[in-house]
Amino acid sequence: MRNYPTVLAALLLIGVNTNVAAAADPVPYPTGYREWVHVKSMLIEPGHPLFDSFGGLHHLYANEQAVQGYRSGLFPDGAVIVFDLLTPISADHAVTEGARKVLGVMFKDSRRYAATGGWGFEGFVGDSQTERAVGDKAATACFGCHEARKDNGYVFSELRP
Amino acid sequence: MRNYPTVLAALLLIGVNTNVAAAADPVPYPTGYREWVHVKSMLIEPGHPLFDSFGGLHHLYANEQAVQGYRSGLFPDGAVIVFDLLTPISADHAVTEGARKVLGVMFKDSRRYAATGGWGFEGFVGDSQTERAVGDKAATACFGCHEARKDNGYVFSELRP
Repeated sequence: MRNYPTVLAALLLIGVNTNVAAAADPVPYPTGYREWVHVKSMLIEPGHPLFDSFGGLHHLYANEQAVQGYRSGLFPDGAVIVFDLLTPISADHAVTEGARKVLGVMFKDSRRYAATGGWGFEGFVGDSQTERAVGDKAATACFGCHEARKDNGYVFSELRP
Repeated sequence: MRNYPTVLAALLLIGVNTNVAAAADPVPYPTGYREWVHVKSMLIEPGHPLFDSFGGLHHLYANEQAVQGYRSGLFPDGAVIVFDLLTPISADHAVTEGARKVLGVMFKDSRRYAATGGWGFEGFVGDSQTERAVGDKAATACFGCHEARKDNGYVFSELRP
């Protein structure tokens, strides 16, 4: 029988964030997303209302089904959108890309994620493919804002020409 | 026999920039580049030594052969790298993407462009696919700087993980 310190050590070893409960249907890490279509980018600076959560330079990437969704307005199941948030490095009159802060993911499965507009939401911390920042908090931490974009398939971004 | 005003009017109609002579082997417009791999991005601000030419938010894109080059260090013929320079819009503590300023292109053909490290260079003005900003000036306007990157295949950027 394991005691608490042993269980805690085991959790730490496998990289589980003990503050985040696992979601019933966890969103998979978006393997290969760096070769997907680059949707658009934005730099969020201090003073912006979303700075605490999303401050930095972010890029959005879309897999083929998500590109289809951006173009048609209807995101099919299997669509995945990635929000790649990097630490901005301001120096010598330029902003360049630093370390990854978090990799946000929206994964469309209208059955599994019916409670949150058909989208599963997750955030992978830094470069980790296993450490999750959202877990079972998607309804409040993510969908609370995305819900306002119902007429756009719950997606904020648009595909830049 | 055409007189000068007629010729000038014809040139204007077909969108030729009369300040730029046509290169012997013009670099083609990189059709479909928005679906290529996004290499990296950078914001160049006032005060930067390259601000006059490249001020704004730029994204680099690579076709399959160029991705192979970034990974191996050897860019094969057919490699194309695109420098997509957008007007930055600074407002409300964020920088977003405005109109395209210029679309820079490097096109690898070691035979045609032997005089400039095997790369052809061009810039397409704004959203135009025909109005050229470099023409036959690549040796001075582009290669003069890129030559310093000989050990990196004459390429400045590196593929961000």
